[in-house]
Amino acid sequence: MCQLLGMNCNTPTDIVFSFQGFRQRGGLTDVHTDGFGIAFFEGKGVRLFHDNHACSTSPIAELIKDYPIRSLNVISHIRKATQGKNSLVNTHPFTREIWGEYWVFAHNGQIKNFEYQHGDYFNPVGDSDSEQIFCYFLETLKQRFGSQEPSKEEIFNVIHELTENIREKGLLNYLISNGDWMIAYCDSLLFYKIRQSPFGEAQLLDEDVKVDFSKVTTPNDKVAVIATLPLTANEEWKQLAKNELVMFQNGEIILRKTPTSPYYYTIEEGRRLAQSYSVA
Amino acid sequence: MCQLLGMNCNTPTDIVFSFQGFRQRGGLTDVHTDGFGIAFFEGKGVRLFHDNHACSTSPIAELIKDYPIRSLNVISHIRKATQGKNSLVNTHPFTREIWGEYWVFAHNGQIKNFEYQHGDYFNPVGDSDSEQIFCYFLETLKQRFGSQEPSKEEIFNVIHELTENIREKGLLNYLISNGDWMIAYCDSLLFYKIRQSPFGEAQLLDEDVKVDFSKVTTPNDKVAVIATLPLTANEEWKQLAKNELVMFQNGEIILRKTPTSPYYYTIEEGRRLAQSYSVA
Repeated sequence: MCQLLGMNCNTPTDIVFSFQGFRQRGGLTDVHTDGFGIAFFEGKGVRLFHDNHACSTSPIAELIKDYPIRSLNVISHIRKATQGKNSLVNTHPFTREIWGEYWVFAHNGQIKNFEYQHGDYFNPVGDSDSEQIFCYFLETLKQRFGSQEPSKEEIFNVIHELTENIREKGLLNYLISNGDWMIAYCDSLLFYKIRQSPFGEAQLLDEDVKVDFSKVTTPNDKVAVIATLPLTANEEWKQLAKNELVMFQNGEIILRKTPTSPYYYTIEEGRRLAQSYSVA
Repeated sequence: MCQLLGMNCNTPTDIVFSFQGFRQRGGLTDVHTDGFGIAFFEGKGVRLFHDNHACSTSPIAELIKDYPIRSLNVISHIRKATQGKNSLVNTHPFTREIWGEYWVFAHNGQIKNFEYQHGDYFNPVGDSDSEQIFCYFLETLKQRFGSQEPSKEEIFNVIHELTENIREKGLLNYLISNGDWMIAYCDSLLFYKIRQSPFGEAQLLDEDVKVDFSKVTTPNDKVAVIATLPLTANEEWKQLAKNELVMFQNGEIILRKTPTSPYYYTIEEGRRLAQSYSVA
């Protein structure tokens, strides 16, 4: 599987610590060597970095590690190519403008036999299944609501409905954000940790790096970090259930659709499932 | 005035040499300290870098200088903010998807009393005049041609017509590209140099750096470089006339609309004109 990293906060926060561990999975502690991307919302603007080199050795990833960008919403993705050529055009996250906002999307998994029909408003540029899914979400929202942006509750409901339509076609974990809220969908493995007062010390799993959050935060800060697998050794990460959809805003979960009998994959099961879709 | 840099080639070429001189104008040899951006087409994909720090000192610009990215089409812009807040969302170049292609746009100048109406397909995210102009071009093209991308000749004609509609509202130099062709419009100052065999040596104007292109090219290479002001001391740069529109493809001009009595600004006149629009 590819791996996802997301952050949603109530105060602009830099993601350097989490990214530092995450990037090692792009070639060093894991096998995702087919490029990476990261999108930082800054106000309504988006700063994007894409590279088709392995994240663990990419000079662009090195720059990001050394250049703290404070953001309320960040989405990052490291890629093991399964569908779509390993070219820049297929590198996540993808971005489009809708209702005068940039929306950003990254997907981990693989959807088969999903042929997105030509859209009036949104069309994929590359040939990945992921960009098709993103365009399917946006096109449907735009067709349904026209020029008037619906409430976040309505957006959440439509995204849930569309996800239900396609999730059985494969493996579908994703993050999507408009710079205000972030929606996370778990089909196999997705964990989150909400850091808030009292802040403690955290130790990365993938690199020998610690941070004491109490020294770099204020008591009101709330930071939700979402990742395919936990990033730290000594924090309690919560797992999303299979087919659970959540919306984060200001560092907390504000909307949630949990299956009636929630099922939680073990990491080993999740990895095997990914392999069965040849998503290594 | 802000400054523009474009490159259109017949073989993927790195822009490091030209960018090295250009970036010095972002704070060192000129006054454009309100951020910069650069877009590299790689196939149909676009790699974007934006920063709201001065280009001459930005770590992102430093990375670009040291990280040769080969591209057929590059658009870069260094900014002196005049309209729109100095925030990332107003940092050029702007990108949108149309007809399954990414289009990239950067503008130097200032348009007044141009209120872009809400578009069905494209809307600005920030509050700059430049992003409104880009959306006006895209929205009109999409409204007129629907889901079928017209020929490049038709695109060129429509862009010419729309430019004529708005050019008297201010100062309008721009570059726009879909990764295949690049359109350049000159309202005051815009120069270009087509480098082709036999290649010679070039010396930057803004920094003490030389390159011998004969050592880094093949005889069939054709590289058009477009810039607000010439970048090299010992090459002959051609100037576009006031209100001239040209389309480059494969490193040469393939379409051109030149006024019947072309007028060429001196650099001094061009600078004064920019100042009269408070575009420093």
